[in-house]
Amino acid sequence: MTEKGKDANIGDLVKIKTAKEEIQGILLESPEAGVVLIKLDNGYNIGISRDNILEIKVVKKEAIEKKKEETFKLSHKKPVIDLIITGGTISSSLDVKTGAVKWLTSPGELFKFYPEIFEIADIRVINPFMKASENMSYEDWRKIAKLAVKSLNEDNVKGVIITHGTDFLHYTSSALSFMIQNLNKPVVLTYSQRSTDRGSSDAELNLYCAAKMALSDVAEVMLVGHASINDDFCYAMPGTKTRKMHASRRDTFKVINDTPIAKIYKDKIEILKSYNKRKEGKEAKAKLDDSFEEKIALIKFYPGQNPDILNYYDKQGYKGFAIEMSGLGHVLTEGKNNWIQVIKELVKKGTIICAAPQTLYGRLDPFVYSPGRELEKAGVVYLKDILPETAFVKLGWVLGHKDWSLEEKKKKLLENISGEFNERLGEEFI
Amino acid sequence: MTEKGKDANIGDLVKIKTAKEEIQGILLESPEAGVVLIKLDNGYNIGISRDNILEIKVVKKEAIEKKKEETFKLSHKKPVIDLIITGGTISSSLDVKTGAVKWLTSPGELFKFYPEIFEIADIRVINPFMKASENMSYEDWRKIAKLAVKSLNEDNVKGVIITHGTDFLHYTSSALSFMIQNLNKPVVLTYSQRSTDRGSSDAELNLYCAAKMALSDVAEVMLVGHASINDDFCYAMPGTKTRKMHASRRDTFKVINDTPIAKIYKDKIEILKSYNKRKEGKEAKAKLDDSFEEKIALIKFYPGQNPDILNYYDKQGYKGFAIEMSGLGHVLTEGKNNWIQVIKELVKKGTIICAAPQTLYGRLDPFVYSPGRELEKAGVVYLKDILPETAFVKLGWVLGHKDWSLEEKKKKLLENISGEFNERLGEEFI
Repeated sequence: MTEKGKDANIGDLVKIKTAKEEIQGILLESPEAGVVLIKLDNGYNIGISRDNILEIKVVKKEAIEKKKEETFKLSHKKPVIDLIITGGTISSSLDVKTGAVKWLTSPGELFKFYPEIFEIADIRVINPFMKASENMSYEDWRKIAKLAVKSLNEDNVKGVIITHGTDFLHYTSSALSFMIQNLNKPVVLTYSQRSTDRGSSDAELNLYCAAKMALSDVAEVMLVGHASINDDFCYAMPGTKTRKMHASRRDTFKVINDTPIAKIYKDKIEILKSYNKRKEGKEAKAKLDDSFEEKIALIKFYPGQNPDILNYYDKQGYKGFAIEMSGLGHVLTEGKNNWIQVIKELVKKGTIICAAPQTLYGRLDPFVYSPGRELEKAGVVYLKDILPETAFVKLGWVLGHKDWSLEEKKKKLLENISGEFNERLGEEFI
Repeated sequence: MTEKGKDANIGDLVKIKTAKEEIQGILLESPEAGVVLIKLDNGYNIGISRDNILEIKVVKKEAIEKKKEETFKLSHKKPVIDLIITGGTISSSLDVKTGAVKWLTSPGELFKFYPEIFEIADIRVINPFMKASENMSYEDWRKIAKLAVKSLNEDNVKGVIITHGTDFLHYTSSALSFMIQNLNKPVVLTYSQRSTDRGSSDAELNLYCAAKMALSDVAEVMLVGHASINDDFCYAMPGTKTRKMHASRRDTFKVINDTPIAKIYKDKIEILKSYNKRKEGKEAKAKLDDSFEEKIALIKFYPGQNPDILNYYDKQGYKGFAIEMSGLGHVLTEGKNNWIQVIKELVKKGTIICAAPQTLYGRLDPFVYSPGRELEKAGVVYLKDILPETAFVKLGWVLGHKDWSLEEKKKKLLENISGEFNERLGEEFI
């Protein structure tokens, strides 16, 4: 800080005087030169042009640092939430020098921005790795599942929150839905689309609502985030029925072929559908079931596509395919690139080929048109109204169970294990 | 017809008497035994249980056959619409014996069900092939484009309608948007999700609205279909910004990252955004530009995906890839399956790699996170808010222009040629 506010440091509580008003807040690192960024009491960040500032007065030195140290101690009076930090924008901030986004290397750093959740719970931080979610794979899902199960089975833990990048958050939520069986407490995944140091960040409301949900009696794997582009409430969305549907909006996650589990306001939770209740007692232990077959592929079928792609993967030892089929569940069934023969041969040798709807919305039905009937007869497993992303995860999870027979695996694929099928879907359509 | 109505044949105008009422309509082939299906004057089909029928009286023999013959003659008083029939549910009916859907083999057969469009136009039928749209490829797009351009450049033709299967209709609408340059008249693609002989068929309203649009002054490639699950109005949707978003709903097509061009009611057209106007005169001829490179692939990136898939295609001589990237435009950029090196090598040898948003909604931005910046630097062409399906089509079309240099091709990919980018997208978000 030069001249105006030269004795003020990041983390200090300051009072800023302009010609129009006086504003008090915690001084933050500003991503823009010429702009002073502060966090208000209500949680919002605002930027004030340095030109408009008459005076910056320090009210309290290191106001945030002190807060931080207090909060990391367990009070033993509040319920405990285990917070598994895995990376993503919710754990990143703008690099003032390059203008780009950088990781917040210390997890504790993160909590400068989220004082509110420490008021309703004792937060224990677990930090297995820091990754952008597009760089995660099934090995990371297993690590998270393992940590979550450990936390869920500790008596004093009320619920688990996982902070995560948005790109492939829906894959992780889906994976945890299968990898954690006999779920006894809430498992809540949350994110942000705007980094924490920006005025419009969605991180704070998302994390607060995630904490509310982690303390609730909803024992489900849920994804919690903005319900709209307003900062008014969040949705708790089912782990297997949710997909990232916008590159940048804060309400990017949408429930597909289902409804949200709950609306979460700062002061209340409004339940929207039936759910599994929290289980108490020693018998109610969550079980880790994290088998996963790595050799699977997700393939989006497109016009004229050569089915030889399946043979290529087969040569690499792939055991299964989730194919995003068109319409009610179709691929090319005539001409030079007919898929039928290739599918038949792979099925014959024990490869599992399942279908998910490329339209995302709606349910597959192989029995309406003859190509569908032909493909079904060839052995394609039609996964109803499943999301393609969930189909991929479920396929890997099912194939990971080496002790199940081929027939058992196919049966499991069609069984509604973690809410991946919505049996009531379609009643609203003519 | 046994007993009741034994002298009534398919196509006759009949009066059906039940205990409650008398209903008049054209007798149709019924998909269900025990049910008599008739087409009412208002265009709807209804099925009446044979058990409830007291009497079936023939009012007029072959009422539909006569209509058909009249309609196929040009009146030379009404405007001319060229109707290119390519297959799909809109040209199919239920096979009474198997309960499955079969093609209507004679195009004329189709018009038993669509009397209304013959009232507003002289319809000339063109039938290059009959295909389910999932079996179409770029060769079919070229055939349709060629026929459409021929029709568009005939002085007496007011507009062109293409009836088509739904599965990949959005690929064809996108292809025609690029393959027909200097568009002078409306090109309207339409479809149905329910076969024509079902009471709830959407075919009639879609085709009628398509005809209204074909006679309008909107010189665009448009996809016309139900705006909701009600039979009240249709949308005219931009050819490059529309996608099939539901496996079975009648309003399956949704405009993504843009708005519909118009609402079409039976009695009026309500324009919703600016459009290119119909061009008259000899200079205003549509131009066929149907080059297409077959050796391209659409790849949806998923967690942990091995980038070797690009090398496999490269070995088959593939010239370009449209990759559905996660979030703002990311793929794996660390660990054993890092894509960066493979992409760099392919770009170096002249392969074009472009990115489209896997989220469908929103716009890519490689400059927010460092993986994006790295990929952009490696040579990935970021196609903004394009639909993945449109990216695939545009890539094939651009690469088909062998006389363009590599740099020109990349430039063309980023140029807004047929409304595939919405430059104003995002203004509504914070």
